[in-house]
Amino acid sequence: MSLIISGGTVVTADGRFQADVRVDGGKITALGLDLAQSGDKIIDASGKYVLPGGIDVHTHLSMPSMGTVTCDDYYTGQVAAAMGGTTTHLDFCIQPKGSSLRAALDIWHGRAKGQAVIDYGFHVAVTDPLPEVLDEIAGLPDQGVTSIKLFLAYKDTLQVDDTAVFRCLERARDAGVLTLVHAENGDAIEILMAEAVARGETAPKYHALTRPPELEAEATGRAIALAEVLGAPLYIVHLSCRPALARVREAQARGARVTAETCTQYFFFTKDDLDCLGFEGAKWVCSPPLREKEDQAALWAAVGDGTLSVISTDHCPFRFDTQKTLGRDNFTLIPNGVPGIEERLMVLHQAGVRGGHFSLERFVALTATNPARSFGLGGVKGAIAPGYDADLALWDLERPHTITAKTNHGAVDYSLYEGMEVRGMPVTVLVRGQTVIDQGRLITERGSGQFLHRQRI
Amino acid sequence: MSLIISGGTVVTADGRFQADVRVDGGKITALGLDLAQSGDKIIDASGKYVLPGGIDVHTHLSMPSMGTVTCDDYYTGQVAAAMGGTTTHLDFCIQPKGSSLRAALDIWHGRAKGQAVIDYGFHVAVTDPLPEVLDEIAGLPDQGVTSIKLFLAYKDTLQVDDTAVFRCLERARDAGVLTLVHAENGDAIEILMAEAVARGETAPKYHALTRPPELEAEATGRAIALAEVLGAPLYIVHLSCRPALARVREAQARGARVTAETCTQYFFFTKDDLDCLGFEGAKWVCSPPLREKEDQAALWAAVGDGTLSVISTDHCPFRFDTQKTLGRDNFTLIPNGVPGIEERLMVLHQAGVRGGHFSLERFVALTATNPARSFGLGGVKGAIAPGYDADLALWDLERPHTITAKTNHGAVDYSLYEGMEVRGMPVTVLVRGQTVIDQGRLITERGSGQFLHRQRI
Amino acid sequence: MSLIISGGTVVTADGRFQADVRVDGGKITALGLDLAQSGDKIIDASGKYVLPGGIDVHTHLSMPSMGTVTCDDYYTGQVAAAMGGTTTHLDFCIQPKGSSLRAALDIWHGRAKGQAVIDYGFHVAVTDPLPEVLDEIAGLPDQGVTSIKLFLAYKDTLQVDDTAVFRCLERARDAGVLTLVHAENGDAIEILMAEAVARGETAPKYHALTRPPELEAEATGRAIALAEVLGAPLYIVHLSCRPALARVREAQARGARVTAETCTQYFFFTKDDLDCLGFEGAKWVCSPPLREKEDQAALWAAVGDGTLSVISTDHCPFRFDTQKTLGRDNFTLIPNGVPGIEERLMVLHQAGVRGGHFSLERFVALTATNPARSFGLGGVKGAIAPGYDADLALWDLERPHTITAKTNHGAVDYSLYEGMEVRGMPVTVLVRGQTVIDQGRLITERGSGQFLHRQRI
Amino acid sequence: MSLIISGGTVVTADGRFQADVRVDGGKITALGLDLAQSGDKIIDASGKYVLPGGIDVHTHLSMPSMGTVTCDDYYTGQVAAAMGGTTTHLDFCIQPKGSSLRAALDIWHGRAKGQAVIDYGFHVAVTDPLPEVLDEIAGLPDQGVTSIKLFLAYKDTLQVDDTAVFRCLERARDAGVLTLVHAENGDAIEILMAEAVARGETAPKYHALTRPPELEAEATGRAIALAEVLGAPLYIVHLSCRPALARVREAQARGARVTAETCTQYFFFTKDDLDCLGFEGAKWVCSPPLREKEDQAALWAAVGDGTLSVISTDHCPFRFDTQKTLGRDNFTLIPNGVPGIEERLMVLHQAGVRGGHFSLERFVALTATNPARSFGLGGVKGAIAPGYDADLALWDLERPHTITAKTNHGAVDYSLYEGMEVRGMPVTVLVRGQTVIDQGRLITERGSGQFLHRQRI
Repeated sequence: MSLIISGGTVVTADGRFQADVRVDGGKITALGLDLAQSGDKIIDASGKYVLPGGIDVHTHLSMPSMGTVTCDDYYTGQVAAAMGGTTTHLDFCIQPKGSSLRAALDIWHGRAKGQAVIDYGFHVAVTDPLPEVLDEIAGLPDQGVTSIKLFLAYKDTLQVDDTAVFRCLERARDAGVLTLVHAENGDAIEILMAEAVARGETAPKYHALTRPPELEAEATGRAIALAEVLGAPLYIVHLSCRPALARVREAQARGARVTAETCTQYFFFTKDDLDCLGFEGAKWVCSPPLREKEDQAALWAAVGDGTLSVISTDHCPFRFDTQKTLGRDNFTLIPNGVPGIEERLMVLHQAGVRGGHFSLERFVALTATNPARSFGLGGVKGAIAPGYDADLALWDLERPHTITAKTNHGAVDYSLYEGMEVRGMPVTVLVRGQTVIDQGRLITERGSGQFLHRQRI
Repeated sequence: MSLIISGGTVVTADGRFQADVRVDGGKITALGLDLAQSGDKIIDASGKYVLPGGIDVHTHLSMPSMGTVTCDDYYTGQVAAAMGGTTTHLDFCIQPKGSSLRAALDIWHGRAKGQAVIDYGFHVAVTDPLPEVLDEIAGLPDQGVTSIKLFLAYKDTLQVDDTAVFRCLERARDAGVLTLVHAENGDAIEILMAEAVARGETAPKYHALTRPPELEAEATGRAIALAEVLGAPLYIVHLSCRPALARVREAQARGARVTAETCTQYFFFTKDDLDCLGFEGAKWVCSPPLREKEDQAALWAAVGDGTLSVISTDHCPFRFDTQKTLGRDNFTLIPNGVPGIEERLMVLHQAGVRGGHFSLERFVALTATNPARSFGLGGVKGAIAPGYDADLALWDLERPHTITAKTNHGAVDYSLYEGMEVRGMPVTVLVRGQTVIDQGRLITERGSGQFLHRQRI
Repeated sequence: MSLIISGGTVVTADGRFQADVRVDGGKITALGLDLAQSGDKIIDASGKYVLPGGIDVHTHLSMPSMGTVTCDDYYTGQVAAAMGGTTTHLDFCIQPKGSSLRAALDIWHGRAKGQAVIDYGFHVAVTDPLPEVLDEIAGLPDQGVTSIKLFLAYKDTLQVDDTAVFRCLERARDAGVLTLVHAENGDAIEILMAEAVARGETAPKYHALTRPPELEAEATGRAIALAEVLGAPLYIVHLSCRPALARVREAQARGARVTAETCTQYFFFTKDDLDCLGFEGAKWVCSPPLREKEDQAALWAAVGDGTLSVISTDHCPFRFDTQKTLGRDNFTLIPNGVPGIEERLMVLHQAGVRGGHFSLERFVALTATNPARSFGLGGVKGAIAPGYDADLALWDLERPHTITAKTNHGAVDYSLYEGMEVRGMPVTVLVRGQTVIDQGRLITERGSGQFLHRQRI
Repeated sequence: MSLIISGGTVVTADGRFQADVRVDGGKITALGLDLAQSGDKIIDASGKYVLPGGIDVHTHLSMPSMGTVTCDDYYTGQVAAAMGGTTTHLDFCIQPKGSSLRAALDIWHGRAKGQAVIDYGFHVAVTDPLPEVLDEIAGLPDQGVTSIKLFLAYKDTLQVDDTAVFRCLERARDAGVLTLVHAENGDAIEILMAEAVARGETAPKYHALTRPPELEAEATGRAIALAEVLGAPLYIVHLSCRPALARVREAQARGARVTAETCTQYFFFTKDDLDCLGFEGAKWVCSPPLREKEDQAALWAAVGDGTLSVISTDHCPFRFDTQKTLGRDNFTLIPNGVPGIEERLMVLHQAGVRGGHFSLERFVALTATNPARSFGLGGVKGAIAPGYDADLALWDLERPHTITAKTNHGAVDYSLYEGMEVRGMPVTVLVRGQTVIDQGRLITERGSGQFLHRQRI
C-alpha cells in the first residue's frame, strides 16, 4: 500500500510535467501517469502544482542574541515554515565563548528535540577559534554537520579575525565542510555606530547608515580572497548589494569555489523603510541592512544569471512589542533580525515568478534544489525523483492570500509584508510522506521532524 | 505492454537516482523502482547511467559553403551523432540570396527527408534581409522554426549589416523567435585576411591571426547592445574567448536576455594547433578560431558559473583529403569548420566531468537540458520525466575508448581528437523509445528521425 | 622692447607661481620675477591669474548641416571663443560626398580666410571613403592637418561603415594622423527614430530616447576594438555616458592608444532638460544626447582620474527662432547641436574648480594643455613656457558674471546656461602676444587669427 | 649675481622648451632665453636636458628591521640618490611600540641630522595605535609631517588592525594628513609562511609563493573601502599586481580619493628571479613580492593611463653578504627589501622612455611632479618654474652607462640591475641651486640637505 499524490503538475528545477507521485516508506518511489493501485492512499492534487518542499538554509530559532532570544522556538518557527511550504531548514548553532563545538551542538539539539515538525540541520558558528576548537572541525561531518559559519561583523561578540577565518577555511576545506561567512567589516561598523550615537543619531534609520555597502563589499572580497588562496569552498550569506555582488561575480569568473545567497527581504524593501515615523522602522532592522532600489534590480538579475544560487530568509524573529523596543533610544540596541520563514515562498512566487523575474522551475531551484545540493542534501531533499524524501508542497497557484501577522503562525507580532496580496499558496505539505499541513491546518505531531545528517561538501 | 529501462541510475540536470524508466508510445510514462510488469519489454540498464539523449543545437549537415558542401549528410551526420549519444540536433538552414525563408526551409526539409535517424529542427539563417523576408519571420513559428541566425562575419556572402540585425531582432522578439548571432567583425577580418595574403602569409595559422579575439568581443558587444535596446532575446553562438565572455557576463548582470554557448573544440585546442608542419593545421580551421590556454580556463569557469549555458559542436565537417585542401595555397580558401558531433559528449565527459570541471548533472544540463529549454523543446526533450520523449542514452561510465577517425561513423576523414583516450561511452541510445544504437551498432531505419516543431521562445 | 605681463599668478597644468611673462615676437621668451625693463610694454596682471588660452578642439562654424548652416561663422564664433578665454580651436571640415579631402579643406580655408581672430586648425571628416580619398590621408600632415574624423552615426549622410573605419584607422596610423570617432550606432538609431515618429512621438525629448546610451557604448567599443587590432591611435569625441566610459577605461588599462573627451554640456544637463513645455527642449538637442545625473557624476570622476583628458564644447550653434524650429513637428528634423564656445571655461571653472571636482591646474590641463598635446600643438600652444605662443588669458577669479544670451557674443539667440551665475572670468586675452580682448572688449582686427599647421601625432 | 643654467632643454611634466634657468637664493627666479647677465655664474647645459630633481617618496634609511638595520644611512643613501638624479626623498619614521610619534620623529631627525646631502621629509608609520598616539595625528602637520603609514602586513610587528586603520584614516582626514597603506593581508601570509617552513620550503622563492597577489588585492580593496566610507584620502604604496590595480581603478572611477604608486623593481623582475641556484634569489626578496610578466605589462599601462601616478623605489637596502644571509635557512628570516634609490631614474628612463612606454614629460611627472603634489610639496619641489626650489638634474640623454654595484654609491653590495646597460644619465645635480653632483662627482658637504616641512594635503 502506497501513498499516491495524484493528478498534479510536478515541478522540478529542470521542468514540469503531469505525473502522479508514489510514496513508500516516506520516500518517493515512482513518478508517472496513473500510478494508483487499489489500496493506495490517494491525495488528490489535480489542479495543483507539486513542488519539492522548500529548504531554508538560513534561520535562527531560539537563539540568544543581544540580550534576548529570538521569539520563535523550534516548534513555532517550524510550524510557520511548514505553513509557508518549507519542509527543511538549516539553523545556526552558535558556539558560546569558551565552549566546544560539540557542547554547542548538544545545546542546540536539546532545543530542537521533541519540537520539530519539519526536518532540520545545523551550521555551527565558530566564535571562539581556540586551537582545540579548530581541531573539532574535522569531526563535524561525523556529527552530520558539514557547514560552519564565521562572522566578520559583530565586534567583540561573534566576530573573528582573519587568522581565524583563514585557519577555519583551511580546516573546513580538508574536512569536506563548507564555510559560510557573514561579510561586513565589523571594526569599521563598530566605530561608525559609536560615532552616530555620540552625535545623537539614535533612530532606526542610522542602523542602515552606519553599515554602508562598501563595508559589505570589502568583507565579501576579503573572504573570497582568503578562500581562493586556499582553494576552499565558500558561501556568502545574505548578500545585499551591488558591490558585493561584483566581488562574487568576478570570483566565479575566475573559477573560484564561491557561491552566495541573498534573502527574501532584500528584494522588497530599502533603507527608506527604516525611516518611519516613530520607532516602526525597527521592524526592518537586520544586517546587512536593507539597501537601495538599484540593489533590488541587481539581485533579481543575479538570481536570474546564477551568480546567486539560493534565496533564504535569515529568519531571526524578534517581537516588536517587547524585543525590538530594547533599542528604542539607541538603534545599536535593537535586536538585529527580521522574520520571514513563513512568507518566503509566497512572496517570491508573487514577485519573482508572477513578476516575470524567473520561471517556476527556477523558483524551485533557488528555494529547494540548489540549497539541497549546496549543503550536502543532494539525492535526499530538494527534488522530486525516485529515492528522494517525499517532502512535497502542493501549491494552488491561483489561491489569493493577504499576508498579515494576525494569521501568520510564528511567535512574532508583525510581518514585513503586512497587507501584501499574493496569488499562489501551498495548501498541502508533506514531510517524508507524512502530511504536515492539510488545507492550511497543522496536522502533525510535535517532534515528528528529524535532524539531518548531511553529506560532506 | 511497456518498455522498461531497468535498474540504471537516472541522471538529470538536478540530481541522480536509481530508477526504472517506463516508456509507452515513445514517451516516458513513469520513473520508479520495480516498474516492470509481465509482458513488458526490458532493457537491462544495471550498472549503467541513463542520461537524456544529447542535444546539439549547432550543426551544419549537407551545407553548401565556400565552393563545397559539408561532407556529412543527414544520414551520416546523424548516425555519428547517435553513436556519440546525441538524439536531437538543430541544423542551420541558410537562406540563399534572393530566396524566401520558406523556400530555403523547403530545400533543407528535402535534404533531411528520409535520411534522419534522430530528431532534428532548423534554425534559419537570414542572409538577404529583404523587406518581404523580414515579414516572413512572424510566420516561422507556425512552421516549427523558432530561431533565426545572423552572421556578423563572412563579408559579401553571409554577413548582414546592423540595420538588418536590428530589424531582425525586433521582428524575432515580437514573434517569439530567438535570434542567434555569429559574432565576429567581418569587415575588419576581410581586410586583415587580404593584407595577410598580400604579404604571402598563406598558411593555416594565419586564419587565427587574422581573426583576433578583439573582433569577436566587439561583435558580441554589438549584438548585445542592439538586443538590449530592443529587449529582444539573444543567443551568442560559439563564444571562444575571454573578452567576449566579459561582454556576456556584464549583460547578464544587467538583466539582459542574453544566453551563450561555446563549442567542444574551444576547450581542447589553441591557435597553436593550426601551426603544424605542412598543411595539417587546416583541420583545425574554424571560426571563431581556436584561442589561447587562458581562454580555455575561462570557458571552463563560465560553463561552471552559468555564464555559458550550452555546449554545442558547430559540427561543420570537411574532408581533409579533398575539401580542406582547397585552401592549400591560401588559408582564406580553407573551408571553415570542424567535425565533432560524435565526440562531443565523450570528450566533455572525460575532460569536464572526470577532469573535475563540473558534475555529471551539469554535464546533462549543458548538453541536453539547457539546449532543450533555450530552443523551445521544454517538456519534450532534454530531461527524463513523465511526458518527455524517451530519448535516452545508456552510458557505461567505465568503458574505455580511443578516439580515431577510423572507427568514427561520419563521412569525415579525420578527428580533432585522434588518439585521445576516454573512459565513459554511450552504449545504447533510444529515440522516442526506439533503440537506435545497441551496444554500438546502428539498428534503426534511415528515415526514422523526425522534424521537430518547436515552441515559441 | 618686449611685452611684459606683470605681477600675475601663472597657472600651468603642473603648478602655479608668481611670475612676469615676457613676450617677444608673439612668443613667450621668459618667465620670472621682475622681468620688466625700461621701454617694455606692461600689462598689469596683479591680482590676476595668467592661464594658457583655452583650446577647444571640437567646434562647427559655418557648417552646413540638416538643411541649414550653423549660425556662427569664423568671425562670430571666434569672437565668442575669445570672450570666453579661448584662443585656439579646431574645427571640423566635412568632406562633401564625391569631393576630395583637399577640395574640402579649400572650402573650409575659404570660409575662415580673413575672418579669424584666434588661431585655428582643421580636422577633416571623411564621409565618402573612396579609394583615392583614402590615398589622400597620407598627405594630410603636409597640409597641416593631423586628425581625421569618422562618424558611426548619421546614417545615409555622414556615417561610414566598418570597412571604411578600419581602412582609415590604418592609413591614419601610418601617416601620424589621429582618428576621431563620433561613436553612436547610426543604423539602430535611424530605425528607432523612424519608429518613434511613426508612433507620433515627435517632441524633442524623443531625441534622447531614440539614442540610448547602449548605442553609444556599442560604437565606442567597436571603434576601440578596430583601433586596438591595428595599434592605431584613437580619440573618442563627446563621450557622454557611463557604459561608454567603461569601454574607454578598460582599453586604457590594456594599454591601448585610446584617449577621449567629453563636452561641457554633459556635466550640466540631463535628458530631462529636453522635456520642456512647448518646444523649448529643442535647445538641448545634441548628439549624443544629454544623459542622467549618474552619468554626470561619472564624468566628473573620469576627468579627475584621467580617463577623459579633454573637455571641449562640440559648439554647433543653431538659432532657436529660425533653425531649431525646423524640427518643431518632428524631432528628427531639429538641427543637432548646442552652443557653448563662449561659456565653456567660465562654467567649468565655476562647477569644476569651485565645485571641488578638480584644481585650477587640472582645469588648465583639461582645457588647454592636454588638447594641445593630443592634437599636435605641443611646444606651441597650451602651456606657458619659453618658446610657446603667447596665448594667454588673464582671469579675475572673483569677478561675478551672470550668463545670458543677451550679453553673449556669438550669433546664437540662446544660452544653455541662461541665468547661471559664475565667479571668475577672463578679462584680458592675448593671441600670440596681441591683445584680442581687453576688459571684455574686442580690440583685434578681423583676420588676425592664423591657421595652425599641426605636427604629426 | 645669479646662477644661470644656460642653454639646456627644460623638461617639465607638461612640455619641453629651450630656456635658461636663473637661480637666486636657491630658488628659480626666471626661465627664458638669454638670461645671463654679466657677473652671473653660468652652468653650461647646452646639449643637456634640465629636469626637476627626482623625488623618491618611499625609502628606508638606517631603519631597524628584522633584527638588523638597513645598510644605507642618511649619508650613503642620499649620496646614492643624488648620483641617480634624485634631490628629495621621503623616508619612513617607524613608531617603536609604546613610543609617541613625536619621540619617533626625534629619533629619525637625530639619524638624519648632519648627514643629509639632499632634502628629505618623513612619513610616520603608526604601529601602536594607542589613544594618545591617535591624538598626536592632528599635530603632525605642525611638525612638517603630513603623511602617516599603516601596515596591513607584518603580523605581530608592524601590522595594525582595521579598527586602527579606520581611526587613523579618520584622524588623518581631519588633520590634512595623507594615509599610506602597505596592503597585504598579514594574517593569512603569516600562516602561509609558517606552513611553508613546516613543509621544509625554505628557499627564497617561497617568499613570493606565500604572498599571493590575491592577498595584496584583498588588502588594497579593504583599505580603499575604509577610506571611501570616510571620504579620507588614501595612497597605496608599492602596488605590484593586476588585481590590486583593478581595485584602485574602480575606486578612482567612483571618484574616491585614492592614489597609488608602484616601485621600479616591479617593472623589471618577476617571481622567477627569486628562484636562483643557491641563495642568490634573496637579493630580490621584497614585499609585496615580484610578480608575473603580465603584471609588468599592466603596470606600464597603469602609469600610462594615470591609475598609478608615482613611481618610487621602496629603497630598503640590506647587504647580501651579511644581512640577506640571515635567512639562508629560512626565507622568512631574509630581511625584506631591495635597493634602488640610485638606479630608479636611469632604468626608468631606459625602459620607460626609450622603451616607448611614456614620454620624457610623463617620466618627470611620475618621478618628480606628481610625488611633490601628492605629498605637500607643491610650489616648492617637483617642477621648474619661478618660485620653486632650484632642484635640478642635468641629463645627458645619450650618455651610456653600465650599472654595477661596484660603481654604485650606496652601502649595499649588489644591484638588482647588475650589468644592465642604459643610455641617459644625470651628470650635474643641484639642490636649492647648490651643485651636489658635478660630472658624477660628489661636491657638496655632508649636512647640506634640509628637512622639509610639508603642507597639509
